[in-house]
Amino acid sequence: MATRIVTLTTDFGGGDHFVGTMRGVILGVNPAVQVVDICNSVSSFDVLDGALTIAQAYSYFPAETIHLVVVDPGVGSARRPLLVTTSRHYFIAPDNGVLSLVMDREERVSVREITAKHYFLEPVSNTFHGRDIFAPCAGWLSKGVEPEKLGDEITDFMRFSLPKPKMTSEHTLKGAVLKVDKFGNLITNLTPENAPAVFAPEAKMKITVGQGALSEIHTSYAQGKPGELFGVLNSMGFLEIACNRGPAAQAAKAGRGTEVLVEF
Amino acid sequence: MATRIVTLTTDFGGGDHFVGTMRGVILGVNPAVQVVDICNSVSSFDVLDGALTIAQAYSYFPAETIHLVVVDPGVGSARRPLLVTTSRHYFIAPDNGVLSLVMDREERVSVREITAKHYFLEPVSNTFHGRDIFAPCAGWLSKGVEPEKLGDEITDFMRFSLPKPKMTSEHTLKGAVLKVDKFGNLITNLTPENAPAVFAPEAKMKITVGQGALSEIHTSYAQGKPGELFGVLNSMGFLEIACNRGPAAQAAKAGRGTEVLVEF
Amino acid sequence: MATRIVTLTTDFGGGDHFVGTMRGVILGVNPAVQVVDICNSVSSFDVLDGALTIAQAYSYFPAETIHLVVVDPGVGSARRPLLVTTSRHYFIAPDNGVLSLVMDREERVSVREITAKHYFLEPVSNTFHGRDIFAPCAGWLSKGVEPEKLGDEITDFMRFSLPKPKMTSEHTLKGAVLKVDKFGNLITNLTPENAPAVFAPEAKMKITVGQGALSEIHTSYAQGKPGELFGVLNSMGFLEIACNRGPAAQAAKAGRGTEVLVEF
Repeated sequence: MATRIVTLTTDFGGGDHFVGTMRGVILGVNPAVQVVDICNSVSSFDVLDGALTIAQAYSYFPAETIHLVVVDPGVGSARRPLLVTTSRHYFIAPDNGVLSLVMDREERVSVREITAKHYFLEPVSNTFHGRDIFAPCAGWLSKGVEPEKLGDEITDFMRFSLPKPKMTSEHTLKGAVLKVDKFGNLITNLTPENAPAVFAPEAKMKITVGQGALSEIHTSYAQGKPGELFGVLNSMGFLEIACNRGPAAQAAKAGRGTEVLVEF
Repeated sequence: MATRIVTLTTDFGGGDHFVGTMRGVILGVNPAVQVVDICNSVSSFDVLDGALTIAQAYSYFPAETIHLVVVDPGVGSARRPLLVTTSRHYFIAPDNGVLSLVMDREERVSVREITAKHYFLEPVSNTFHGRDIFAPCAGWLSKGVEPEKLGDEITDFMRFSLPKPKMTSEHTLKGAVLKVDKFGNLITNLTPENAPAVFAPEAKMKITVGQGALSEIHTSYAQGKPGELFGVLNSMGFLEIACNRGPAAQAAKAGRGTEVLVEF
Repeated sequence: MATRIVTLTTDFGGGDHFVGTMRGVILGVNPAVQVVDICNSVSSFDVLDGALTIAQAYSYFPAETIHLVVVDPGVGSARRPLLVTTSRHYFIAPDNGVLSLVMDREERVSVREITAKHYFLEPVSNTFHGRDIFAPCAGWLSKGVEPEKLGDEITDFMRFSLPKPKMTSEHTLKGAVLKVDKFGNLITNLTPENAPAVFAPEAKMKITVGQGALSEIHTSYAQGKPGELFGVLNSMGFLEIACNRGPAAQAAKAGRGTEVLVEF
């Protein structure tokens, strides 16, 4: 049998012991598991960034993978720990909407509140549930503990939608930058579904973002001239504003939350 | 049998080949091992930060785990490589005190100087003992080489204590910031053991750190008002000075080494 | 049989889903593989930095390891995906020279253009071949698909040489900084082979880099006085300009590409 896989998506960063400690807890429960990072540098406290990150990556992992998602600004408050089951995967996360975009992509989802405290590390701290609650539950699940043993199904869990672009006049569409990636690309909330006119062949438009402007949609980065801003439908399915071999965020002085204005 | 685990705690960072090379050396000796990161972004040359990091994480890993700890400002000098054995784990590290806080938590510790040069990579460089000495010894240990084969026990190894807070007047306690975590929380050297008055219920006091001041100890981050500094007993067992969803280090203009003054 | 190993060397960084997604694709094809990072923080678009990184680390990994190297500024253009086979290892990378320094170290190298599209993820995006082409091919190779099934051998692949130092007068040698490591050390292109006079015992010379100057070659970091620049033959086989426990890059105001002038 293949080694069972547990993935990590957190905002704990790489500079502290946090992620290493969680790996230890998981392996301490089940030394046969393979712990694999999706990303531990989600923006601090940024549940939307966490939701985007896990939604992009989870589906590629093998069936039965357990995804641990800990972006948890409400740690120590009454927010509940959840176990979410889809047709192929398990997810363990706080009840703050961080799995919303996974749920958007899945047809059948079961959501349980984790209440089985005998699987937690004792004493449970008020500041590190990643170590004391989420990681040990992932470990036990990987050892074959059945989901129903962790808690009962609930329906009143938190869930949010991605902010959608809006027509603000007959010829004007207003969207936003969802995140900036490592290369300085600006990932917007415009998609072929919610803004088809932007992606139409031969579309004539002006797109403004921060102090930058562009009017071309290319099919790859390599088509752009160095230093020039352009759009590209990226691998996540969003309009991305990019520069060939340079950071668009810097060129446009734009970042997470910056308005994106499309004038047709 | 479960795959044997080797963990890494280093100050090599993620931007170079160093950590990847060490992973290669370990796996080159024993391809069946699972190499797991605790943290590779310990502050450069900062033995205390390394000591804090490994001490927080090691105990959660399964029995027989081999912890490789390479924060090694004295690489190439006469400082010795050590193999430390506790009741459940192995540690391989330079003799510079980086295991001091592990030793504080363990009752029975055996310390050996690694002298068995036939396990080293040849030629041994003067600048990268992580690759040439520490990693191959971890690999061979994971394959079942017995600790006594690596070298003899010694007793004159380096060991330091965490700087302790001091009463500087009848009503004044002076501590220090040990480190700043990814969220900008200030981790101090005040604990319920060495500063019980700080953690007493209804304690009345003023805490000053850098340009910040606070008087409340909360039990979780979520209790703090955004923007306000407060204290919390953190998951490591230290007083942490935090802001709810914001970096306390920035709010207080404080960092590693900043004095923490408690006036009762 | 030991778990098969796939390594990752990319410029995708740790802040996005990219690397996690690639791990998922590899494990989705072959859940029994162990995915190991060499380095995912190669400088963005910097093929030379990628080439240096993989060349330093690959040889330590066990036989049959598959090295995935994705520094790919030409993604979406006509540049070809390659499978390179040496006597002990496999390499999957874009055809942009990123494997040049590996080829310099290997005697027998076979280079194939990967054309077997049925192993790719469909549809192939124009912006993330790491996910859609390189990772699945690594997964299938790890499952035992034979190299010749991925495509035919070619000979017109891209390959570059490290920039070499030049004598610019009878007593003057001009080199360059290849990269700055995490500790701020300046790694130059001077080696005992191409600049033997620099490493001669008792060599008398003045080395200038940026605003810094030095005249001593030490055998270890620990020999240097704090704050003083000195040279050391590093573990990669290059002259490194370092400071004991401080960043030489900052002291000399130098970085990647800065000229290194040796006057004998």
